[in-house]
Amino acid sequence: MTTMTRKRDPKLLTEAMLAGDRVALARLITVIENRGAGTAATMSKIYKKCGKAHTIGITGPPGAGKSTITSSVIEHLRERGKTVGVVAVDPSSPFSGGSVLGDRIRMQKHFLDEGVFIRSLSTRGSHGGLARSGRDVSRLFDAFGKDYVIIETVGVGQTELDIMEVADTVVVVLVPEAGDTVQVMKAGLLEIADVFVVNKADRDGALRMKTELEMMLHLKTPEGDDAWQVPVLMTQASAGVGTLELIDACVAHQDNRKRRVTPDARMQERLKAEVLEICEEELMRRLRAGRTNGEVGALLDAVGSGEKDPYEAALDLLGSPEELSKLIAGGD
Amino acid sequence: MTTMTRKRDPKLLTEAMLAGDRVALARLITVIENRGAGTAATMSKIYKKCGKAHTIGITGPPGAGKSTITSSVIEHLRERGKTVGVVAVDPSSPFSGGSVLGDRIRMQKHFLDEGVFIRSLSTRGSHGGLARSGRDVSRLFDAFGKDYVIIETVGVGQTELDIMEVADTVVVVLVPEAGDTVQVMKAGLLEIADVFVVNKADRDGALRMKTELEMMLHLKTPEGDDAWQVPVLMTQASAGVGTLELIDACVAHQDNRKRRVTPDARMQERLKAEVLEICEEELMRRLRAGRTNGEVGALLDAVGSGEKDPYEAALDLLGSPEELSKLIAGGD
Repeated sequence: MTTMTRKRDPKLLTEAMLAGDRVALARLITVIENRGAGTAATMSKIYKKCGKAHTIGITGPPGAGKSTITSSVIEHLRERGKTVGVVAVDPSSPFSGGSVLGDRIRMQKHFLDEGVFIRSLSTRGSHGGLARSGRDVSRLFDAFGKDYVIIETVGVGQTELDIMEVADTVVVVLVPEAGDTVQVMKAGLLEIADVFVVNKADRDGALRMKTELEMMLHLKTPEGDDAWQVPVLMTQASAGVGTLELIDACVAHQDNRKRRVTPDARMQERLKAEVLEICEEELMRRLRAGRTNGEVGALLDAVGSGEKDPYEAALDLLGSPEELSKLIAGGD
Repeated sequence: MTTMTRKRDPKLLTEAMLAGDRVALARLITVIENRGAGTAATMSKIYKKCGKAHTIGITGPPGAGKSTITSSVIEHLRERGKTVGVVAVDPSSPFSGGSVLGDRIRMQKHFLDEGVFIRSLSTRGSHGGLARSGRDVSRLFDAFGKDYVIIETVGVGQTELDIMEVADTVVVVLVPEAGDTVQVMKAGLLEIADVFVVNKADRDGALRMKTELEMMLHLKTPEGDDAWQVPVLMTQASAGVGTLELIDACVAHQDNRKRRVTPDARMQERLKAEVLEICEEELMRRLRAGRTNGEVGALLDAVGSGEKDPYEAALDLLGSPEELSKLIAGGD
């Protein structure tokens, strides 16, 4: 085994990472991000070490100030002596309004702090793998021993909602000008938010937005006496105002959750769904890896030359159990 | 067979649709959008009837005025006696800036026109199926006999880029305030655009944007003497200014394309990629349909109860060729 292979071997990296090696953690994140052959096996090893961190998801529309909030939250957590891992999920579109460069500049002051580990994941071209990468990387931070893991997403599309499923506490950040609160409901944010934040609270309409959110929350059916009451906080994150209260609210939510949660039905369903997702991803990887195989290659060539249409060729392939199992039987 | 089943049977719907039945077309679109068991077989039948329509993709950042342009283009095409099918792909996020309601209102005047068929596809919860739905529905319009098929997307994420692969001509709409043209390059729009439109051309910076785009296009390596020169048009779609020229540019592009295109390498690769995509989608459907099967169900229960972690369970499933082939062997 050459030095280079050793540096990339997921097993060795996992051992080194679990022993506290930051460089191994960084390399392992890259392995996981690339979704290579060893991903599921690596994650299975790491999964056993998970569950100690408090994972906080921060989501909301572009321009709501999520990175500024994250940065301020990190600062407060560090003052309390806590370690933090941050997964920042970059926007899928350069037009979506998130200023990635600006975000990185706002986070810059934390880059030299050994107690903080920040990693950006990019959406482009990931074809759904991003939700899985985001969850896996947050689990890596957890297994590595970070006290807090923050998952920051730009935008509130399906990928972002999927990533949020790994979070213990979901913080939804809004700004007064983000449009009326009806949009919050349409986006399904009312369902996933454990804490609402109205940021840039000095602007017009902030108080009205808070009131509207509280009214909508009031309409939700309570789950029981011990049910969590979703708070609506006001922040001016750029001045550090309100972010300490945000941390306290997240901690209170986590305490409440731990008190209430016997493994609940929703969590069980999520875990089952994850099994199928992991299978899906692995099957797709094998399918793509096997595309140059004999018969499959011939079938694809027939499509390329116009002999068969793509739907017909796919049905041929799916109708031939032998070819199909050869293709997906595994390995590279 | 009951009347209700007959109304939903893809085979009967396909026959009726190909015979010109608008209601059957509408029902078939719903079948295709739901991505049920018969999707690939239906599309294979329809694929053979495709290739007559001129499929125009219209994409660009939210708020660029794509729906207004589409509406104006429809109007001009109808004046020329052409029939039009429109697939409008709704934004994945209510925060992305696209005003879906407004779009529909702008299109409203065409809803009573028998020569125009408009269908919106929604992103939410589609998990990557949207790109496939968008392409399939545009092919349905083609097979139905529409002269023009317009695919309008909101946003320029991966899904939108994927959908655009089915278009003969890709129109990228920008507005001066959409940010500098460097973003155009970052989004990969320079690679996919056959025609650029600077809409809201009366605003500041429109001419500068046009000049910058032309400079960037000039830097692209030309493919040969007969290569298509990507034009940059200026429009004020809300006043109908410039959209006639846009249609002419699209027609010129289609003529140029037909002159040049012997089945090219890029197209062949796309068709091959589609075979794998269709296989993927079908495998996923079968995997999800088979989730309650005996052994698989037991494995999922073990995950739900915490006995196994989801990665481990997925690896178990993938490591058991018998279980796996039973699961994906087909049927529902």
